[in-house]
Amino acid sequence: MEQLYHGKAKRLYSTDNPNELLMEFMDDATAFNGEKKASFDQKGYINKTLTCLLYPLLEKNGVPTHFIKDVNETSVIVKAVEIIPLEVVVRNVIAGSLAKRTGLDEGVELEQPIIEFYYKDDALGDPLFTTAHIHMMKLASDEDLAELRRQSNIVNHVLKSTLVEAGLRLVDFKLEFGRLKEDPTKIILADEISPDTCRLWDLNTDEKMDKDRFRRDLGDVMEAYSEVLKRVEKIVNT
Amino acid sequence: MEQLYHGKAKRLYSTDNPNELLMEFMDDATAFNGEKKASFDQKGYINKTLTCLLYPLLEKNGVPTHFIKDVNETSVIVKAVEIIPLEVVVRNVIAGSLAKRTGLDEGVELEQPIIEFYYKDDALGDPLFTTAHIHMMKLASDEDLAELRRQSNIVNHVLKSTLVEAGLRLVDFKLEFGRLKEDPTKIILADEISPDTCRLWDLNTDEKMDKDRFRRDLGDVMEAYSEVLKRVEKIVNT
Repeated sequence: MEQLYHGKAKRLYSTDNPNELLMEFMDDATAFNGEKKASFDQKGYINKTLTCLLYPLLEKNGVPTHFIKDVNETSVIVKAVEIIPLEVVVRNVIAGSLAKRTGLDEGVELEQPIIEFYYKDDALGDPLFTTAHIHMMKLASDEDLAELRRQSNIVNHVLKSTLVEAGLRLVDFKLEFGRLKEDPTKIILADEISPDTCRLWDLNTDEKMDKDRFRRDLGDVMEAYSEVLKRVEKIVNT
Repeated sequence: MEQLYHGKAKRLYSTDNPNELLMEFMDDATAFNGEKKASFDQKGYINKTLTCLLYPLLEKNGVPTHFIKDVNETSVIVKAVEIIPLEVVVRNVIAGSLAKRTGLDEGVELEQPIIEFYYKDDALGDPLFTTAHIHMMKLASDEDLAELRRQSNIVNHVLKSTLVEAGLRLVDFKLEFGRLKEDPTKIILADEISPDTCRLWDLNTDEKMDKDRFRRDLGDVMEAYSEVLKRVEKIVNT
């Protein structure tokens, strides 16, 4: 197996099938565009297991995803895609960079969810892009963006209702999409959905149960990730 | 006359008529959100005089503006408006923050002009806003934004063709709009158009003829402003 990609939290390897890749979830954690680094035992396993629970659930609800099958402790087989270099951020509650950008208080529920696009470019610090920037850089067409929004809204709906049953508030999350290698006209959900990519707050206590525990040095990072997995497993498996 | 507003480069005073204000152009210059400060003799006069040349020209081309009449060396009478807290930036060429955001080289001509909206808030550093942020903060409706874009495109067209005759390349510029005090359903162009708010490069030498001379310590700031005024006067008055 040839290593095709070594990201900050995942690695991709080729398989015998040119349309399928092996995606490995690593224990590495980074924040602030790679400035802060650490490794957390079990993170790869937890995030992989969450992906194996959530992606089939999204498929059932009409979102095409790259997930094919579970392989081992930290890896899954996924469909090969060309990643669209946009981080699609869906927000239900003001937090993080949206609080900084608007001056509004973290924790305020939005009247309507909002979707933002960030240009996936580490050297530039993943800047916010408007539709005009996206078209200027020829990253996606209007139709592509409509499809990204459509799928992201379904993901938000499915995740929010699942997580609320698990006693978790879905504050915001980041998605990545790709064009299917076999048929580049098809855009599907790629990447992962985990406490690395979502802000999840305990529904009763507002306690942060996600990567902000690492970003903001709140401690008990893996305790929170494990608790999220335990709760989601219980809901999705019943 | 009561001082109603003291901005970084302009002051507004009440007049006998509640629907009219006196706008004074100051010699003060600031950059980087007020971090860098200076004063340039004649700047107020030059920017005021440019406004008196350009706003009537825009009116003639169908853009409603706040300009009423010239008063003295540094002041004009304008219509009273409630400023929409958005800086509308129109770009024809990559420069400044667009170069930083995209990683593209300054000076590259865009295939199509692009329009960006920044939230006018010094404490937040005038952040880029998408349509979603603007709606979230209830700053403008879809119809308002369409009107801002429509007027900004005309301004770009009129300015670009006028300035090219003056041997100047209109790289980008910032506009501000307001809702007319007498009739808040009417959105009109407010603020000013000058080397403080435009990037202007000499058409032949690419020499910067605008506030970047101050921002980037290039020297000869007022020489450039005077040259712009001289050239624009010649074109508009003939």
